[in-house]
Amino acid sequence: MNIHEFYMKRTLEIAKEGWGRTNPNPLVGAVIAKNGKIISEGFHEALGCAHAEVCAFSNAPTDISGATLYVNLEPCSHYGRTPPCVKAIIDSGIKEVVVAMVDPNPKVSGKGIQMLKDANINVIVGVLEEEAKKLNEIFIHYITKRLPFVIMKTAMTLDGKIASVTGDSKWISGEYSREYVHAIRNRVSSIMVGVNTVINDNPSLTARPISGKGIDPVRIVVDSSGRIPIESRVIQSDSEAGLILATTEKIHKDKETQLLSRGVRIIKTAPKNGKVNLRELMEELYKLEIDSVLLEGGGTLNFSALEAGIVNKVMTFISPKIIGGSSAVTPVGGKGIEKMKDAIALSDIRVERFDRDVLIEGYVADK
Amino acid sequence: MNIHEFYMKRTLEIAKEGWGRTNPNPLVGAVIAKNGKIISEGFHEALGCAHAEVCAFSNAPTDISGATLYVNLEPCSHYGRTPPCVKAIIDSGIKEVVVAMVDPNPKVSGKGIQMLKDANINVIVGVLEEEAKKLNEIFIHYITKRLPFVIMKTAMTLDGKIASVTGDSKWISGEYSREYVHAIRNRVSSIMVGVNTVINDNPSLTARPISGKGIDPVRIVVDSSGRIPIESRVIQSDSEAGLILATTEKIHKDKETQLLSRGVRIIKTAPKNGKVNLRELMEELYKLEIDSVLLEGGGTLNFSALEAGIVNKVMTFISPKIIGGSSAVTPVGGKGIEKMKDAIALSDIRVERFDRDVLIEGYVADK
Repeated sequence: MNIHEFYMKRTLEIAKEGWGRTNPNPLVGAVIAKNGKIISEGFHEALGCAHAEVCAFSNAPTDISGATLYVNLEPCSHYGRTPPCVKAIIDSGIKEVVVAMVDPNPKVSGKGIQMLKDANINVIVGVLEEEAKKLNEIFIHYITKRLPFVIMKTAMTLDGKIASVTGDSKWISGEYSREYVHAIRNRVSSIMVGVNTVINDNPSLTARPISGKGIDPVRIVVDSSGRIPIESRVIQSDSEAGLILATTEKIHKDKETQLLSRGVRIIKTAPKNGKVNLRELMEELYKLEIDSVLLEGGGTLNFSALEAGIVNKVMTFISPKIIGGSSAVTPVGGKGIEKMKDAIALSDIRVERFDRDVLIEGYVADK
Repeated sequence: MNIHEFYMKRTLEIAKEGWGRTNPNPLVGAVIAKNGKIISEGFHEALGCAHAEVCAFSNAPTDISGATLYVNLEPCSHYGRTPPCVKAIIDSGIKEVVVAMVDPNPKVSGKGIQMLKDANINVIVGVLEEEAKKLNEIFIHYITKRLPFVIMKTAMTLDGKIASVTGDSKWISGEYSREYVHAIRNRVSSIMVGVNTVINDNPSLTARPISGKGIDPVRIVVDSSGRIPIESRVIQSDSEAGLILATTEKIHKDKETQLLSRGVRIIKTAPKNGKVNLRELMEELYKLEIDSVLLEGGGTLNFSALEAGIVNKVMTFISPKIIGGSSAVTPVGGKGIEKMKDAIALSDIRVERFDRDVLIEGYVADK
């Protein structure tokens, strides 16, 4: 690891401090180093707050002229929610900028770097680029595909069950896995389940983080014909996070009125095989600046989502226990794919252990 | 790692050379070191061959008096298929013996070590004991429980399916996983499947190792009512390995005669819920000196085996692909366990990657 990688590693680390509060903005950290020492740090704290670079400048105790700035994303060159960082960098007297990755937004990509170069600042691009892309996989997808990044998360036994034959599922995964899931819930803008999950399990779908107050993601319930019970926790809870009911014209008018009066936002899509058109739903969520969806569906919704091609990442927690049962439900149901050669193969597989549990995650190729 | 551990590691390594040929004997290696150098090595090559210590002695080019002998299992003190090694060690002039683990056989355990001590040889016991026990987990179980060690092996997709809704299962796991399974098949004394697997897939159940001629394990088909087709590959193949049909009194007399005339060995157990009593079958296999069974059953046989408490180890290969299908079969079926808290929890979990696939293995507590 060279010196640039060393400081960039730290930059990525502090970028994570904004975890779950910057959406749909990216996670960005900035480190200012001079004479072999870090003299200031900053990160993008939340949507609408100052950008990481500006935070680092305002945190700097001394003159930063002649220093090197590390930032994991190309500094912005345009007026958005805040003034452009490039201007602040040039004004600061920084002599060198090290960037992990260029801005994925095709409208501005490379412009910030060019402006810095034009101001005779030395610019190095691509240091820990892979790590930086991984950190902001949600942002990159959201900006380039104009769709939310969908993570399908499941937890199953070592024999592939998400519940026993009697429907018991408490608990499949262990404490450490569940803590990690809450950290992921805290990171994303929304959580999506099917109406059957609401009817059977009646979850509150809040983030419940281990420490600090979490920002509850928006709850989305896919409910093609409006069967959601009014007394459900997702409707009754006093969470500040909103509730979106994704439905079709099949919903009864009275139910719709009842739900609207309780502050539920209703998104109706054209029906696809009599169900919510998930692709269209994702387009609507994008318009609401929802950059990410944690899909915690049952087997039917999960298969529909995979079939619709909206799933980008799969996270499967496997608990080393066996429950058996030929009628017990599995993570992905529906009609299934007929031939093994046509199975959805995941790429960039990563394996991580959480105490006894094993997480396997990977990515679905774009359709 | 101290010097004893260093040489014991080598000892365990060469013990593996007997892989699949020593059953029901253990895998044993021996290393003779003198003045900081290995001067001879040996291993137990196959059932009925000389023991590792004797091989090491006969391989020694020079005088071994005053040397240290490393052996992963306590040297034998009794006349079995070969003369006792303890006598050979005492006669050799060896001054020190380092042993990884004592003999698990309660009838002789510790006797060899005592005889060496009585002959004024310095004995050190317990170096890399855990690794040594892992290497000979089959032998230890077979000797102490008087039952074969049963390994339930399955391969499933990341959504818990062992075949698609149409029954297609070629291939779930990748090439490297399949190679490893063949190495395991080569290690065990027998492979067990249910008759449905024979009817549906018609496998030959040979070891097909990557290099060298494998010793085919005995094939065992669990077939409560004698439905196995006479034209099945397991019956027709010219493998030297035998075929055992485990059945009950429900088998038709003519079918039994046909099978016997083709050299099939038939084991009948008292029926348990109308099916083969698997516990009784294991007791019969023990009498035949079958020390290990690789269970490659379908969901029904796997659940019956777990329910009967005969499974000792579970090896699950998970391929990071998704096939879906609410009617697709999973690794363990049957009637299942009702409550998640009563699930069979595995211990000593180990995770290993084989290219894209992930192996999760663990042990079932004795009932």
